[in-house]
Amino acid sequence: MAIITIIGAGMMGSALAFPARENGHEVRLVGTHLDRDIIAHCRQTGSHPKFDRPFPDGVKFYDVEDADSAISGCHFVICGVSSFGVEWFSENMLPRIPESTPVLAVTKGLFDLPDGTVKTFPDYWREEAGKHGRKPDINAIGGPCTSYELVAHDHSHVTFCGRNPETLRFLKSCLSTDYYHISLSTDVTGVECAVALKNGYALGVALSIGANRKVFGDDTLHYNSQAALFGQSVEEMRRLLRLFCGNDAALSVGAGDLYVTVYGGRTRLVGILLGEGLTIDEALERLQGVTLESLVISKRVYAALRRRFAEEEIAARFPLLAHVSKLIAGEQAPIPWDAFTSEKFN
Amino acid sequence: MAIITIIGAGMMGSALAFPARENGHEVRLVGTHLDRDIIAHCRQTGSHPKFDRPFPDGVKFYDVEDADSAISGCHFVICGVSSFGVEWFSENMLPRIPESTPVLAVTKGLFDLPDGTVKTFPDYWREEAGKHGRKPDINAIGGPCTSYELVAHDHSHVTFCGRNPETLRFLKSCLSTDYYHISLSTDVTGVECAVALKNGYALGVALSIGANRKVFGDDTLHYNSQAALFGQSVEEMRRLLRLFCGNDAALSVGAGDLYVTVYGGRTRLVGILLGEGLTIDEALERLQGVTLESLVISKRVYAALRRRFAEEEIAARFPLLAHVSKLIAGEQAPIPWDAFTSEKFN
Repeated sequence: MAIITIIGAGMMGSALAFPARENGHEVRLVGTHLDRDIIAHCRQTGSHPKFDRPFPDGVKFYDVEDADSAISGCHFVICGVSSFGVEWFSENMLPRIPESTPVLAVTKGLFDLPDGTVKTFPDYWREEAGKHGRKPDINAIGGPCTSYELVAHDHSHVTFCGRNPETLRFLKSCLSTDYYHISLSTDVTGVECAVALKNGYALGVALSIGANRKVFGDDTLHYNSQAALFGQSVEEMRRLLRLFCGNDAALSVGAGDLYVTVYGGRTRLVGILLGEGLTIDEALERLQGVTLESLVISKRVYAALRRRFAEEEIAARFPLLAHVSKLIAGEQAPIPWDAFTSEKFN
Repeated sequence: MAIITIIGAGMMGSALAFPARENGHEVRLVGTHLDRDIIAHCRQTGSHPKFDRPFPDGVKFYDVEDADSAISGCHFVICGVSSFGVEWFSENMLPRIPESTPVLAVTKGLFDLPDGTVKTFPDYWREEAGKHGRKPDINAIGGPCTSYELVAHDHSHVTFCGRNPETLRFLKSCLSTDYYHISLSTDVTGVECAVALKNGYALGVALSIGANRKVFGDDTLHYNSQAALFGQSVEEMRRLLRLFCGNDAALSVGAGDLYVTVYGGRTRLVGILLGEGLTIDEALERLQGVTLESLVISKRVYAALRRRFAEEEIAARFPLLAHVSKLIAGEQAPIPWDAFTSEKFN
């Protein structure tokens, strides 16, 4: 039996308490300063307010002030903060975690760098800790997995990535169940980029749902146009992976994650409204409370490209990303279908 | 204005009459010996029996006996026969078409060869014609496009592939509309393999819909497991493209086509029933009249692999294809989730 400390009581971090506790481990779920109401609710009811199934018996709940005792003696820490909490985790939590205690992050996203490349969160955390002479063992989870379906025991297949195969195998041995299937990879940059890139593209595919609803007044059929945008997304994600990571080995992880995000995520709702012709401000007003995480990631990918290429070149090489970026920036424009066609002659 | 002769009055061939005729071309739709009722219906009503929108005014209808006069003077021929009509087209129609008249085939599929590779239909037709000293100019259409959505003027993006860029540009100029978007490629083998391979995998992804229906008794959520199988499909399609074509450049065409087939195709229905636990015979009995095209293609891909690899090696390298092949062969087995997990360490 291991002791597993989860920091961040959002949906994804909390969902991992299910396989962890069902496997018989001690699970300590620590809310951040933003999670006080959630932790209070969990303590009182044994359930997370967003899930319709109670936690397995025995999960322990902590407020952020008790993080030290929650971390003490644990075998690894799951970082469940959102991408907006990455700096907070770096400054407030990482220094409390012994270097020998692995961290497994579910936080998805990346930073854009001045040189036109991107930085993954594991790299960011390692670098920040390095400034204080520390070398944390940071690992991350990528791949298609929505929290509520994990809680429902749907079959899910994710990839744990990190630098140390032995750590990865240990993490897998603790969390793998008959419904939570885990691949392992040392390609941290590839996996993390692939799952971050899918955000803008999920919005892009959903545009066609809104656009067709506007034209045809219904929600039937229209898979041709979704499929066209899905294929275009896979093509552009491949180009971006090659650009940012030097190879596209993680493309299938990104394609799977794109698929689930088109259907299961909130990004879909933004895409549909933009496709119907609303501006980004109107769409966000309509969707009060929706997370903007995916919009931030899309903006960062575009910002990285802008440091490397002129606008016209981005529009030529990544026309769907360029279109989505325009819409997010407040412009309105029809889907540039003809920009997706190409001539590939040997 | 060009003259365009479509041979085969099935759904996809007939659907192409819409962009062709809307662009002002003369369109001659020729039914095969299996299409007599369809052609009679078209003549009488101006509509194809499977479409809820009538043909554009002026489409001309021919029975197979009048194929010669339909071909006479045309600028290109669209081959709209199903994969079961490939030999028939080769023996009965191709010899009537002048070598200088391009053929554009919508027929999807491939043959397995004794050496463990596969042959595309364009290659088959070229080789058969070559035996009689003829060199037809064969081109093909790949990519996600269901006929009824094309007829509904949904935005669709396909790839025309062939050996001659000038021919491809001419075909595109005749058929491209503001809703039918066309890329061009000389990578015939890659495009044709990609769109053929997606058949078994569409069935594979749909398995999870049936399996979840059985476990949870409903059709809600469950995108994690679909996404896991979708990602696995993209990964295996990439491996197969590298194996059969030496490169995976057409992967995004295959991914888009897989997406539309999971949703818009009849293969989905077979996959759901198999996922619910029916045998292939029970599923086919339930779906009287469903085309078996996709099952035939899946069997051929597996047969090609079997000439090259032992069963165990196929199960290790292509576990989803191996599983689908088992089900199609009449066996029953649960989805082999753990076979999809991998370790990728540098």
